[in-house]
Amino acid sequence: MERALVLFAHGARAASWALPFQRLREITAAARPEVAVSLAFLELMTPSLPDEVAALAARGVREVTIVPVFLGQGGHLLRDLPALLERLRTDYPGVRFASVPAVGEDPGVLAAMAAYCAGALPD
Amino acid sequence: MERALVLFAHGARAASWALPFQRLREITAAARPEVAVSLAFLELMTPSLPDEVAALAARGVREVTIVPVFLGQGGHLLRDLPALLERLRTDYPGVRFASVPAVGEDPGVLAAMAAYCAGALPD
Repeated sequence: MERALVLFAHGARAASWALPFQRLREITAAARPEVAVSLAFLELMTPSLPDEVAALAARGVREVTIVPVFLGQGGHLLRDLPALLERLRTDYPGVRFASVPAVGEDPGVLAAMAAYCAGALPD
Repeated sequence: MERALVLFAHGARAASWALPFQRLREITAAARPEVAVSLAFLELMTPSLPDEVAALAARGVREVTIVPVFLGQGGHLLRDLPALLERLRTDYPGVRFASVPAVGEDPGVLAAMAAYCAGALPD
């Protein structure tokens, strides 16, 4: 696999926090069997994004697309992720990096969340 | 309106962070026009959950359902939200409070996020 999707999440102290992200990775990987789909975390959980990219590059991956699994676009995506990306592009000149808007910006995700919220209160 | 849905999110320093949550509130409110739908934040943004509940109780709301708009179930939902809820139940004995699992636990939300992630990389 020369191409990879990295689902980039915040991380937390509680191990249980990662469960929905692991399910998300499994569902995404099933939808794109020809692509390497992995998780990476900003903090508190492993692997970090640089460690995950190092592992992918060592396996011969030459194209990495990063999907921020965040709801809002705060300092982590406005500053931390661009800084990480700049560093990765310097460290891996043979790898092409791309990133997309946060999952919380997607209309389909917003519609699914709204359906869940609206259903949280019985009629 | 005697019933309320409160979408409870983390909060952030960047004002832009709140935009998807505001859209989520609007879509949810359109789906449940007979219910008061509002946002409240754990930190860094206003209103806080206690301030929002105070405003709702003052308007005569007697049933409040809290939907955590979080992806993972970490310390904020395992400890902070239960502590807030316990305090609210003490402070407002005439109001019935309920809470549901985080939006990130919902299969429909996970499916929508996976579709977005899978589509982030062109074929």
